[in-house]
Amino acid sequence: MRQDNRATDALRPVQVDFGFQPHAEGSVLISMGDTRVLCAVTVEDRAPPFLLGREQGWITAEYGMLPRATHSRGRREAMSGITGRTHEIQRLIGRSLRMMVDLKQLGPHTLRVDCDVLNADGGTRCASITGAALAVREAIGHMVANKRLASMPELLPVAAVSTGIVQGKALLDLDYSEDSNAEVDANFVICADGRWIEVQSTAEGTPFAPAQFNALAELATAGVEQLFAKLW
Amino acid sequence: MRQDNRATDALRPVQVDFGFQPHAEGSVLISMGDTRVLCAVTVEDRAPPFLLGREQGWITAEYGMLPRATHSRGRREAMSGITGRTHEIQRLIGRSLRMMVDLKQLGPHTLRVDCDVLNADGGTRCASITGAALAVREAIGHMVANKRLASMPELLPVAAVSTGIVQGKALLDLDYSEDSNAEVDANFVICADGRWIEVQSTAEGTPFAPAQFNALAELATAGVEQLFAKLW
Amino acid sequence: MRQDNRATDALRPVQVDFGFQPHAEGSVLISMGDTRVLCAVTVEDRAPPFLLGREQGWITAEYGMLPRATHSRGRREAMSGITGRTHEIQRLIGRSLRMMVDLKQLGPHTLRVDCDVLNADGGTRCASITGAALAVREAIGHMVANKRLASMPELLPVAAVSTGIVQGKALLDLDYSEDSNAEVDANFVICADGRWIEVQSTAEGTPFAPAQFNALAELATAGVEQLFAKLW
Amino acid sequence: MRQDNRATDALRPVQVDFGFQPHAEGSVLISMGDTRVLCAVTVEDRAPPFLLGREQGWITAEYGMLPRATHSRGRREAMSGITGRTHEIQRLIGRSLRMMVDLKQLGPHTLRVDCDVLNADGGTRCASITGAALAVREAIGHMVANKRLASMPELLPVAAVSTGIVQGKALLDLDYSEDSNAEVDANFVICADGRWIEVQSTAEGTPFAPAQFNALAELATAGVEQLFAKLW
Amino acid sequence: MRQDNRATDALRPVQVDFGFQPHAEGSVLISMGDTRVLCAVTVEDRAPPFLLGREQGWITAEYGMLPRATHSRGRREAMSGITGRTHEIQRLIGRSLRMMVDLKQLGPHTLRVDCDVLNADGGTRCASITGAALAVREAIGHMVANKRLASMPELLPVAAVSTGIVQGKALLDLDYSEDSNAEVDANFVICADGRWIEVQSTAEGTPFAPAQFNALAELATAGVEQLFAKLW
Amino acid sequence: MRQDNRATDALRPVQVDFGFQPHAEGSVLISMGDTRVLCAVTVEDRAPPFLLGREQGWITAEYGMLPRATHSRGRREAMSGITGRTHEIQRLIGRSLRMMVDLKQLGPHTLRVDCDVLNADGGTRCASITGAALAVREAIGHMVANKRLASMPELLPVAAVSTGIVQGKALLDLDYSEDSNAEVDANFVICADGRWIEVQSTAEGTPFAPAQFNALAELATAGVEQLFAKLW
Repeated sequence: MRQDNRATDALRPVQVDFGFQPHAEGSVLISMGDTRVLCAVTVEDRAPPFLLGREQGWITAEYGMLPRATHSRGRREAMSGITGRTHEIQRLIGRSLRMMVDLKQLGPHTLRVDCDVLNADGGTRCASITGAALAVREAIGHMVANKRLASMPELLPVAAVSTGIVQGKALLDLDYSEDSNAEVDANFVICADGRWIEVQSTAEGTPFAPAQFNALAELATAGVEQLFAKLW
Repeated sequence: MRQDNRATDALRPVQVDFGFQPHAEGSVLISMGDTRVLCAVTVEDRAPPFLLGREQGWITAEYGMLPRATHSRGRREAMSGITGRTHEIQRLIGRSLRMMVDLKQLGPHTLRVDCDVLNADGGTRCASITGAALAVREAIGHMVANKRLASMPELLPVAAVSTGIVQGKALLDLDYSEDSNAEVDANFVICADGRWIEVQSTAEGTPFAPAQFNALAELATAGVEQLFAKLW
Repeated sequence: MRQDNRATDALRPVQVDFGFQPHAEGSVLISMGDTRVLCAVTVEDRAPPFLLGREQGWITAEYGMLPRATHSRGRREAMSGITGRTHEIQRLIGRSLRMMVDLKQLGPHTLRVDCDVLNADGGTRCASITGAALAVREAIGHMVANKRLASMPELLPVAAVSTGIVQGKALLDLDYSEDSNAEVDANFVICADGRWIEVQSTAEGTPFAPAQFNALAELATAGVEQLFAKLW
Repeated sequence: MRQDNRATDALRPVQVDFGFQPHAEGSVLISMGDTRVLCAVTVEDRAPPFLLGREQGWITAEYGMLPRATHSRGRREAMSGITGRTHEIQRLIGRSLRMMVDLKQLGPHTLRVDCDVLNADGGTRCASITGAALAVREAIGHMVANKRLASMPELLPVAAVSTGIVQGKALLDLDYSEDSNAEVDANFVICADGRWIEVQSTAEGTPFAPAQFNALAELATAGVEQLFAKLW
Repeated sequence: MRQDNRATDALRPVQVDFGFQPHAEGSVLISMGDTRVLCAVTVEDRAPPFLLGREQGWITAEYGMLPRATHSRGRREAMSGITGRTHEIQRLIGRSLRMMVDLKQLGPHTLRVDCDVLNADGGTRCASITGAALAVREAIGHMVANKRLASMPELLPVAAVSTGIVQGKALLDLDYSEDSNAEVDANFVICADGRWIEVQSTAEGTPFAPAQFNALAELATAGVEQLFAKLW
Repeated sequence: MRQDNRATDALRPVQVDFGFQPHAEGSVLISMGDTRVLCAVTVEDRAPPFLLGREQGWITAEYGMLPRATHSRGRREAMSGITGRTHEIQRLIGRSLRMMVDLKQLGPHTLRVDCDVLNADGGTRCASITGAALAVREAIGHMVANKRLASMPELLPVAAVSTGIVQGKALLDLDYSEDSNAEVDANFVICADGRWIEVQSTAEGTPFAPAQFNALAELATAGVEQLFAKLW
């Protein structure tokens, strides 16, 4: 059993609250255990400059973490600039969300997604994707309701979970203490029909066998099924 | 009567929640109406370099606003750098909080205060000071409980309110729609014994008579008395 | 008596020289005692982008200090970036000068004001405002003379003084040695008809009573009257 | 058959030249087809500050691309700052190389690896890892020869290949024209015993089935075997 | 005799290779002894904004050095920003190349020249100019071949050499060990008809007599003649 | 005759005022015609870090220009960062001043020289060097008077002049209107014994013959002799 008495294949309690940032076209506060991320979607009525003349929309993301979201205070990125880790995460979130909808159907709009970690206990990038996907759905519904979009486009639900190998055991949805001791770390972004959008698997201390990777992939698949059942 | 049926000398509903960021030595989520600010205090066991050999502590503050805290999305300061407005506000918060305690009694510690606006509806700098003062008190209590400080120093409670003149009328605790139409804007940081710590009064469109300033000062004095009664 | 034998309510000697930077539409070198600030106004024949379509002009300011204006050399901001203090001061100067003239009467022009401190002995932000207001007047006259503006708009003269409480006494126009020992510091930007444009009052070491603030306000009022009498 | 008549499971011609940057402790110019990357390893005789007292060494990497390595000139990052893509790649290279050797056996040394792309035709991050691994081996040999390290530590050979799905077909070692048309993109960092160090698989236009991922993994496994046979 | 048995007036072996960066309109890899610089020219079909309406073209240059081009690794400028030395060199290269051609004849085009030092052994700025001039010639030929320019404009061949005084002796084309011991350092940019484009002569430890300067000028004149004979 | 009726070999009126920045150990306001530069020298009682253990001092310079020193306002470098031109000039000033004194005799001190252009009418870098050399002399005298240095070291007087070819004529000490029309531009830093410290000669529009360079050198030699006669 794990420290919080979870089974190896159990998610932490998940909760989503809509409307925390009432100015946003889509706003979701998602909690995965003690990890809490505020996701906001802003809709702009034009495509970004690099898509001019391409008759399609765009979804892009920014990610941040409040300085005291973590055990010891981190430097405020507004002071120190964006770290490499932040760059990497916000690129991942943006790529994942762009799979949710045919960008041509989105029309000449830009959806700017902000994911801000209010408290961190492992899995912040996965919680960001899972929460932001719901906020994107809300924002697109808002566009339709406000005639900024003629009709609701087909959406592909997306969610993400972390997995890892800790002391030789494959675990689903690692908290911070597990994550910081993991030998292997694998994040999966998966859509509701079971196809994969993104896989990132990293040896943290020792390389891993393909069979170990497959065990993690199975845990992840079962994990996102639970998320889709609860949240979509 | 004002748009939300408040009297000219009435505060918006105030609420404080402790412990939202559990890693922090002091954590307060303060709401003044729809303005919500997350205040966290981090305690470091050394004075800042510029005070070396001075046998005293320090309190400093940083301020930020989530991009979609506002009606239209603002640029993320981690991307664009700190604005002049942010610099000005965080300097004000730091100066105000340093009045709360004799810095020599604080010993060789640095308190880093983070005020992050989750949602903005006017008065964010005042809400930051009022909330952060409570978080400082919690953090100093935490220091005593953990023997990082021998005994509780005497604290001077501090709170702040905004006032302004809108369509010729002096109003207490302006929300965003009032603030953006104010002819005069005055923020007061006041302590529990009625003395003033900081006054900033600005003509937004037209200069004001000293008597008008005095009317605002009276509103502010009565306003912080209510805050001290509720929160301290 | 004060160190330089001034009465508590006396200004330091004030002097203004026009034309030090001959390329500028308005140029004033102002001295308040040993504080010397070079103020230049540049006129551009278009409003700033954020005012497009609003049929009005704009006045904005930048402030700097030469590295060896002070006792010990400061870092050159061109190397280290703008400090929070600089941001705060240049915002104050800009706000104050915009009260001088109806911006609609100014037409689609931008006045860029540069205030550069050549030598610092306290009160640099106040000297900047007092000197820059004269340079703005000169620049607007230059616009009229050059047909960039049809007629002279009505100007509201503006000046600023510092005050403070040092060893319990209220003093006007603090020099550096007084300023660095002040318990309370208050800057007033006042216009020629006695109305106030901006008040910033800060407890430097101990909070202050409203009555003390009022004493400072009286000193400031009398101080700016002398400035208007001499300079306008 | 592919545009250059390669089989779907064939690598492009690989070539490595040692000593191009003679000042470096390890220097490899690697070509994978028209992709050419200059890899240099610099050895410093101290661990990085964050490892002080931990009795181990460190390997870290930086990645760059000459402005005209690509079809259209890119902005020089020395002017524009590091992009998110660069951050992501150099973090990947560093993580991968740190798997090559027990960092405790490396002793208190830092190996700084520079990977600079002189010409780009797809797969630059994989070529960087494959080339840099050889340069690390050379640098560690240099350390032993110069008594900076007592004996040769055991090295785990590492190499990387790109794979992808283009027009429904799984391909090994994509060139630029293939890469820019790929539906799925997967990079594998694999060690000589067949275990995996890092997997990054991304849907470029459409999600992919786990079976497709497995086909790419097979191609990659066979690809790195050829690299180890030729280069190690 | 010098360390490498060269006569005082002898150049190091020079070699140029075209086409190393095949995407560029002009690409030259130049070696002067162990100094190797990769020069690329990119042609854009518009003049820079500051020349709008002036009916002429422009040539501009950027210069960089790979971190391990030198004995000890330098900081990557993409991380640390451009140094003053880099600014100075790239301005010199740009000025020199703009003398090669009548910019009116170049038409509304911008030639962006990148000079990247792959290995450094003294004289990198001179090698950059000499190599880049050849790459500019190639790029302009490419423009004519591709009808981006109606006919070949007249070109003024340009080359540069370093000279210096080492232990009292005037030397041509200093390598790093000579350069770092030079008392006087003089770089000459000269055109094929013997006229000068740029001279920079600096006392490194002791001022120099005009006669010494003249001796260096003679060496340089003979040196560039050899370069023109070999390369143009 | 020139626009201001000067002979081709005549300097503009030169004037120096000491003590404009009274806090500085050396302060000179130099005017060369309408070019006015404020030079300040700050003495620090330690060598810079890169000279630790070398038992010598250092002289370094920074250069700036007030935004409205020029005909049209320039961007404030504190906002936009240092330009390449500024880097180049401040490196030149520092190199030139370091020739004035044996740095070993200077002891473990750093002299920081600030040259700030208050008004610009051509030749600002030369005026900076000429004025700063006098301020360095004053600062070293101040060090001796205050026992920070045991005795006055031998000083080599240094001055600089600009020369150029305008409409085919060689001119001394160009003002802005001449400078902006010059075909060739040459700056000479020369010491009192006639030796040269730095020569920078640049073709602005057309290459120049060595004989033309020699004519400029003669003008410069005679020009600095006048400066030494007047100022040292």
